[in-house]
Amino acid sequence: MTQTALSDMQVAHQLADAAGKVILPYFRSGDLGAENKLSEGFDPVTIADRAAEQAMRALLAELRPQDGILGEEFPAKAGTSGRTWVLDPIDGTRGFISGTPTWGVLIALSQDAGPILGVIDQPYTAERFSGSADLAEMTGPLGRRPLKTRSIQDLSEAILFTTFPEVGCPEERAGFERVAQQVKLTRYGMDCYAYALLAAGQVDLVIEAGLNAYDIQAPIAVIEAAGGRVTDWQGGPVHEGGRALAAATPELHAAALQRLNWQG
Amino acid sequence: MTQTALSDMQVAHQLADAAGKVILPYFRSGDLGAENKLSEGFDPVTIADRAAEQAMRALLAELRPQDGILGEEFPAKAGTSGRTWVLDPIDGTRGFISGTPTWGVLIALSQDAGPILGVIDQPYTAERFSGSADLAEMTGPLGRRPLKTRSIQDLSEAILFTTFPEVGCPEERAGFERVAQQVKLTRYGMDCYAYALLAAGQVDLVIEAGLNAYDIQAPIAVIEAAGGRVTDWQGGPVHEGGRALAAATPELHAAALQRLNWQG
Repeated sequence: MTQTALSDMQVAHQLADAAGKVILPYFRSGDLGAENKLSEGFDPVTIADRAAEQAMRALLAELRPQDGILGEEFPAKAGTSGRTWVLDPIDGTRGFISGTPTWGVLIALSQDAGPILGVIDQPYTAERFSGSADLAEMTGPLGRRPLKTRSIQDLSEAILFTTFPEVGCPEERAGFERVAQQVKLTRYGMDCYAYALLAAGQVDLVIEAGLNAYDIQAPIAVIEAAGGRVTDWQGGPVHEGGRALAAATPELHAAALQRLNWQG
Repeated sequence: MTQTALSDMQVAHQLADAAGKVILPYFRSGDLGAENKLSEGFDPVTIADRAAEQAMRALLAELRPQDGILGEEFPAKAGTSGRTWVLDPIDGTRGFISGTPTWGVLIALSQDAGPILGVIDQPYTAERFSGSADLAEMTGPLGRRPLKTRSIQDLSEAILFTTFPEVGCPEERAGFERVAQQVKLTRYGMDCYAYALLAAGQVDLVIEAGLNAYDIQAPIAVIEAAGGRVTDWQGGPVHEGGRALAAATPELHAAALQRLNWQG
């Protein structure tokens, strides 16, 4: 099997393997506070972030030279194929420096209309959540399992996640609170892991603001492959970033959208 | 080696093994909402909670018949040794039903003056945090590591965790906020895992209210073995429950206590 025979998902998994290998030695490796600069002038989490993106870019140069790259840490690389790999080596930096296994390596493959493939990878727990047109599955401590969002349709039965209680600006927080007031349970602090849990059928809503394209493209692909819906707060596409509403079912999505009542 | 030759820590690890084996099949096993009662009339998380405590009680009857037992799910058992095993099979039930690996099995061995041994166990991530007079270590995906709290003394450098932004009643929330305003980073949603991260030197403060004895005794033992300090919000003992302040250093503890400014 030559390298060019690799499927896009196999390439994505190789990228995740490479990033995890680079990052893991820096996780829980001692004081990671921003004040703790190494001789290079960067803190360890930034070093891990950059080194992981470089490792993924090197692999893509070899395996998918015609594709573009949009990453968090380095300038965008234009491609000739009309396809772009969208990379966030460590999504959830503040979780990372706190030692919580809620950060992840986010990898998406995007075409004009948005992501067609996504991987959310958590190297410490050895969990990988993968979604594309023909795959929706996770691997982890309990083995290989299909990803399928829950069937919940009513806000009153839903579990809602966001990372920070303030969500964003005061108006964004107020929008979030309008939904939170209606749900069964609201929890915080899970970074990109919350999107993975939604795809895995454990939680039903994730609402966030202030996202970049590389924060949300992998979650979009994984959650949509698992049967969920991800849009901005007005029901439009969110793959270029901004405010995201991810829901387990179309009905729950519509109910949350109505409560958000976002006028932009 | 006869069973009675087991050290208390070996007994605690056997209890954690037994509890994890019972609980793990229920974790992420499908809809775990409270409305989803099984034929026994209990939801799966309650069944797992009770079955795990029964498994631990059965082991203690065999290995430590003279000791008392204080558990979350069943009536206290009096002992004749002056020692009590304090058990919370699933601490962080709401995390459990959300699929987050932030819940834990909490096991402590207590004498009159409080816990002398504690274990915080996370079966899904295969992490175990153990503390006693002569041991402070964790095992997990990165192997065996000593537990040691960080050396941070100033609130301005500290990472603070609590589980819910509301913390407790409005006055308790206000006390928490007085500390949160001074720290470098505040994060939420980690349940008992936050105490484990403090012992592991990843975060510096955990502040919670409304705790029971079985919620806090294992964290006390693990954190104190790692060099930290755990008291109530007035600097007194907290092993019987209530409001807990856990800190990485005595200096940081004193600074947080002053900001809490709790009059009871």
